[in-house]
Amino acid sequence: MIDLTVKNALHAQGPLEDVRIRGWVRTRRDSKGFSFLEINDGSCLKNLQAVLDADAPGYSAIEDAATGAAVALTGELVESPGKGQTWELKARELTIIGTAPDDYPLQKKRHSDEYLRTIAHLRPRTNKYSAITRIRSEAAYATHRFFHDRGFHYIHTPIITGSDCEGAGEMFRVTTLPPCMPAPKDGDVHAEDFFGSAANLTVSGQLEAEPYALALSKVYTFGPTFRAENSNTPRHAAEFWMIEPEMAFYDLSMNMDLAEEFTKNLVGSVLDASAEDIELFARFVDKELMPTLENIVSQPFERLPYREAVDILKSAKQKFDFPVEFGTDLQTEHERYLAEVHFKKPVIVYNYPRSIKPFYMRLNDDAGDAETVAAMDLLVPRIGELIGGSQREERLDVLEARMDECSMDKAPYWWYLELRRFGSAPHAGFGLGFERLLMLVTGVTNIRDVISFPRTPKHLEF
Amino acid sequence: MIDLTVKNALHAQGPLEDVRIRGWVRTRRDSKGFSFLEINDGSCLKNLQAVLDADAPGYSAIEDAATGAAVALTGELVESPGKGQTWELKARELTIIGTAPDDYPLQKKRHSDEYLRTIAHLRPRTNKYSAITRIRSEAAYATHRFFHDRGFHYIHTPIITGSDCEGAGEMFRVTTLPPCMPAPKDGDVHAEDFFGSAANLTVSGQLEAEPYALALSKVYTFGPTFRAENSNTPRHAAEFWMIEPEMAFYDLSMNMDLAEEFTKNLVGSVLDASAEDIELFARFVDKELMPTLENIVSQPFERLPYREAVDILKSAKQKFDFPVEFGTDLQTEHERYLAEVHFKKPVIVYNYPRSIKPFYMRLNDDAGDAETVAAMDLLVPRIGELIGGSQREERLDVLEARMDECSMDKAPYWWYLELRRFGSAPHAGFGLGFERLLMLVTGVTNIRDVISFPRTPKHLEF
Repeated sequence: MIDLTVKNALHAQGPLEDVRIRGWVRTRRDSKGFSFLEINDGSCLKNLQAVLDADAPGYSAIEDAATGAAVALTGELVESPGKGQTWELKARELTIIGTAPDDYPLQKKRHSDEYLRTIAHLRPRTNKYSAITRIRSEAAYATHRFFHDRGFHYIHTPIITGSDCEGAGEMFRVTTLPPCMPAPKDGDVHAEDFFGSAANLTVSGQLEAEPYALALSKVYTFGPTFRAENSNTPRHAAEFWMIEPEMAFYDLSMNMDLAEEFTKNLVGSVLDASAEDIELFARFVDKELMPTLENIVSQPFERLPYREAVDILKSAKQKFDFPVEFGTDLQTEHERYLAEVHFKKPVIVYNYPRSIKPFYMRLNDDAGDAETVAAMDLLVPRIGELIGGSQREERLDVLEARMDECSMDKAPYWWYLELRRFGSAPHAGFGLGFERLLMLVTGVTNIRDVISFPRTPKHLEF
Repeated sequence: MIDLTVKNALHAQGPLEDVRIRGWVRTRRDSKGFSFLEINDGSCLKNLQAVLDADAPGYSAIEDAATGAAVALTGELVESPGKGQTWELKARELTIIGTAPDDYPLQKKRHSDEYLRTIAHLRPRTNKYSAITRIRSEAAYATHRFFHDRGFHYIHTPIITGSDCEGAGEMFRVTTLPPCMPAPKDGDVHAEDFFGSAANLTVSGQLEAEPYALALSKVYTFGPTFRAENSNTPRHAAEFWMIEPEMAFYDLSMNMDLAEEFTKNLVGSVLDASAEDIELFARFVDKELMPTLENIVSQPFERLPYREAVDILKSAKQKFDFPVEFGTDLQTEHERYLAEVHFKKPVIVYNYPRSIKPFYMRLNDDAGDAETVAAMDLLVPRIGELIGGSQREERLDVLEARMDECSMDKAPYWWYLELRRFGSAPHAGFGLGFERLLMLVTGVTNIRDVISFPRTPKHLEF
């Protein structure tokens, strides 16, 4: 007897005499003399149909093979006379592994996303969330393969950090001190703390990836990042995963090339590896999903300077909630207008005003545009910003002047500055929000539905 | 002109007329009429030798091509007359990209690991640490490939959590409240906190992986975990990465099979993909490295119950610092004795006393050994415990009784318990400490040297 996953059973090359399938009952239909069971084990979207005769061993427990129950079925894998599947199981024996009483929440009817979030421990047993999980896994694998094939080294940058990459991020504090501890007399709150200094959860691995790029040339991170932003929107989570490549000897234009190639490759890989799962979303979640994704894969992205993007937005017929001028940050409504309405494809906006960007971005030369930095954002339909990146400031004097301009204390950055003293080189990188990518490829509009157990303000269940 | 990495240059199929190499100068030797430069770009361990004539463009800046400087060299890739390399660069032109002044810390002499930790932003430019970085990257890739090829789905379990998997872990608190906040009158310290409740950094993704295993059958996590343990040892870090597979329908024996297969596959993959880098450690760090690793790949692991392991330790001639009796936890000295001295190969010890193991491990049946749980630890030479795992308790009544026995508040685990009410199934899993694996395959004895920027008590630099 061999154990088969549902996926392997459905893809069998021929009939198999003696197999065992273990999984969970999705539905059961009893007929005179036999029962049909639809078995799912999460290995793929589809169920395997099993037919069990009423005189088979174990049939006396058929009432326990209710929706949600875990069962084992042994039998013969045979060609299915029914439509919709090639193979079905002609079962010889049923074993109940774990029952599911009547109050099992995932009965056949459809449930709202909001309700399913309250049972996040069970929702991976639904078609939609098991599909998202498989897509997430394939997208992660495609990410590693993409960079590995191109000679990038995967690095793990620290999660607990003393620095604040974005300069103005709202960060979570990490501590082993009790809450409401009396203030110490000498004023050093952190003297007794685990690290002896203030510690936070990282908002980006970039600053720590740079030393590695300036040693191994091409590296990337893929890890969790955190924002303690008190926003209850469908786009924000306190904990999310980011992919951050960082490359020595890359300028902004090569950075844009890589961002475009990576995005196309990721979308293409997922379309390929998760075709069946993506189709579910194309049918039930977003009718425009397939054309949107195919457009991303096949069309060159548009590229234009921020200055031109602002001009387009100012002359747009559409009314925006936020006015746009040179020097204002683009809002999601502007980003989506550019990608969805104006260009109808992904757009890379580059050369943003220095005033709205962090200290580490490379100041453009005077000959170019001294008011701007070598930043780039990749904007995609539905999502807005998918990728943000820049060429980094590699000139020590310019970087120091910029930190002064931003009123930053340079002392904690001694090591970051030293990278510009010892063998400095042009380098660039970007960050892609992994959940935004998943929202893009599934059409799911709430970030809470592409994360296993989402963390948002006042929500820490499971 | 084409840009080549050092690795691609050294593996060229034939001479190339017009190439550019960019990297950092490791050494330079000036002769009459020309200079030799050793260039490294981190793409591989080896340097590319370049020869530059004194009358070539850019040669006037040759003094700036000092150790540590970033340079570009264009020229012709030709067969090398010297020994030790196949190809060298007959350079036509030198461009200094970034200088390195005399106080560049990585001059030719050897530096201690302790010193290099103080310049963790520069140490990836040394042979040893760039090799570790590449090995780490290859081991991570081999991990994803191993599980992907076997139908596992990669999941991201939450980093910020309200639960404490190990039951007694020393955890970091996560908060947005200021330190030394006055105690609120109503006593609810966390009312104003981000999540509205106590939040910690995860010590393991297992509890959150279980719902996914009971939906998708085979899943794994690979992410950071945290212990706020105030131990300053070469084996402890506050932040480290864990790989945690979790499988439905697996019992303890299948779990041991997977742990053995995974360990062998990982070590074998790294020996294969990182042969040159591993050789560095075999030559300079641990003379016994290659036999140790080849033994792991080629020999079946030993398996024995904890009870027998205790008997072996009690009758051992070796003196231990900690006495051993049935019911005591094995210390590293015991683990290493079993793997290094007694069996001289990896050992899986299973069926540990229930009294020293967490609540979620499956109680062995009375017919077997009611005092033990279905736990397993994989012990390897040099390291001790590399993997810890168990079959999980899938029986609701037994699990609840066990939680009571451990004086646990069951309320926060309502969802974990529900997994045992709805389609429960036998399942098992384990955790592998990624840094311990890296110590194993490199022979490096301090965990601080296999992590980019290690986090330990009072250390939060970079």
